[in-house]
Amino acid sequence: MAADNPEPIIAVGTIALDTVETPSGRVEDVVGGSGAFFALGASLLAPVRLVSIVGRDFSHWDDLDRPNIDLEGVRRTDGKTFRWGGKYRDNINLRDTLFTELGVIAGYVPELPAGYRSGRTVCLANIDPPVQLRVLDSLDHPEFVVADTMNYWIQSQKESLLEVLRRSHVLILNDEEARQLTGQPNLFEAVQEIQKLGPATVVVKKGEHGVVLAGRDDYCALPAYPLRRVVDPTGAGDCFAAGFVGYIQRAGSRSFDTMRTAAAYGSALASFCCEDFSIRRIKKLSLAELEERVESFRRLVHFD
Amino acid sequence: MAADNPEPIIAVGTIALDTVETPSGRVEDVVGGSGAFFALGASLLAPVRLVSIVGRDFSHWDDLDRPNIDLEGVRRTDGKTFRWGGKYRDNINLRDTLFTELGVIAGYVPELPAGYRSGRTVCLANIDPPVQLRVLDSLDHPEFVVADTMNYWIQSQKESLLEVLRRSHVLILNDEEARQLTGQPNLFEAVQEIQKLGPATVVVKKGEHGVVLAGRDDYCALPAYPLRRVVDPTGAGDCFAAGFVGYIQRAGSRSFDTMRTAAAYGSALASFCCEDFSIRRIKKLSLAELEERVESFRRLVHFD
Repeated sequence: MAADNPEPIIAVGTIALDTVETPSGRVEDVVGGSGAFFALGASLLAPVRLVSIVGRDFSHWDDLDRPNIDLEGVRRTDGKTFRWGGKYRDNINLRDTLFTELGVIAGYVPELPAGYRSGRTVCLANIDPPVQLRVLDSLDHPEFVVADTMNYWIQSQKESLLEVLRRSHVLILNDEEARQLTGQPNLFEAVQEIQKLGPATVVVKKGEHGVVLAGRDDYCALPAYPLRRVVDPTGAGDCFAAGFVGYIQRAGSRSFDTMRTAAAYGSALASFCCEDFSIRRIKKLSLAELEERVESFRRLVHFD
Repeated sequence: MAADNPEPIIAVGTIALDTVETPSGRVEDVVGGSGAFFALGASLLAPVRLVSIVGRDFSHWDDLDRPNIDLEGVRRTDGKTFRWGGKYRDNINLRDTLFTELGVIAGYVPELPAGYRSGRTVCLANIDPPVQLRVLDSLDHPEFVVADTMNYWIQSQKESLLEVLRRSHVLILNDEEARQLTGQPNLFEAVQEIQKLGPATVVVKKGEHGVVLAGRDDYCALPAYPLRRVVDPTGAGDCFAAGFVGYIQRAGSRSFDTMRTAAAYGSALASFCCEDFSIRRIKKLSLAELEERVESFRRLVHFD
């Protein structure tokens, strides 16, 4: 890994108060949201300037307080913080959303601090596509745009999402979403159609089955890091994006080979995320621990 | 790879006449069966002595005629060859069995030619567990026993299957079967319970999601080789076993590291199997092509 002083990543995403029930237990009003998971994860590898919004009821600043996270872009405003509630089934890959209370996210128009505008690497974590577009519009010359999305936006904001894709270099989504976005049951075909929409590189997350990274001519497939026990998968996808973008930024290269290793960092970070509720495990994770897991991961998939 | 003259593998499994419909087309009364797929696949890597049975109506001897396949153990008898019919859905991972006509398989008691009895490596491909046991009993000193099974036997022949497991070194099965056999939804726990039943090494096939190889202390996970088009997945599991056992036999080592590479050979062979109906692709496959695909597979999962 190169780059002693990686440039900051500009990231936009939600900060949420999550209420989550899994077979391992239940937590209430704990820190969640794509922006929070992304910032905490990626900050192990590169500085993050976070663009987000919370209500006056948000009090978990300690959880986001890290030397590598700049919170100047997080607006505090009247109203309630975005809340999400979900319950995972015994098959932890299945979850039901119990409630979504948009709160201050509704009608959010992000304003970037002046110092953020020169950012060249941007992660548009999972949030309303018009918000993602507004962040893109606010940047002077975004060079490397990684977009994350989810089924909800594919249904409800397809036009804005397509505009995001036109301006993105990498799209991260799950297999079901790839099929939903393109109407293609075959994942190969789906990926090729997505590439026609803009992003040269498509990362398809398959949960416990790992991840596929597709460039124009290159292909990489990695299994998920095997966990003996998944406590709470919430945020694992955001943590994948965090490890992926964080590693690329730290390496100072956007080659496909760099992205292969970045996918391993993303998978490793996602696996840590699942080991405890909310941001608990990610928050106390060290870079050395992350690198050690990437090393185990390397052994896992290695053959002579 | 070592072993200039690998010892023969003793294999027992079915020879069938398959009628298969997939979104790519339909074939009728073509060669199928676990023994046929296994013998054709493994014979690229090591000699195979096949134990099986067919009826007088079987005429596809050309399909099994290979220098490395010994058919002395295949009995021809009055009655009809085992027939299986299946139809795959648009989601090619789902199939419905349309008919199963046991024919000469019903009541089959294998007799091993005298020359087979000294065989040390045995593959018990997917067939009635009492038939698998009978083959084990007929061998002088089986040293390395690889068993394959399927959901049907777990339901209907559990006692015999458990006896097979007690005497096996490796069990190959799919994720659903691992859960069914142990009642454990968590794959880790399921694998550990299976190891307590006998086999030190468990190979869990996850179809398009790859394969997990679990030793007592080691672990390996590989994605499936990505195919742009799956024509017919029938026999892919048997071909996995063929590449896996064939490579181990050819390498002349049963270490976990050998098994990692063997799993890649199995995955590569399974991917070829899916490219055409029945045994068509496997039958004309060369060792050079197989090795080339293992090499692509290595690049696919490699990261720096």
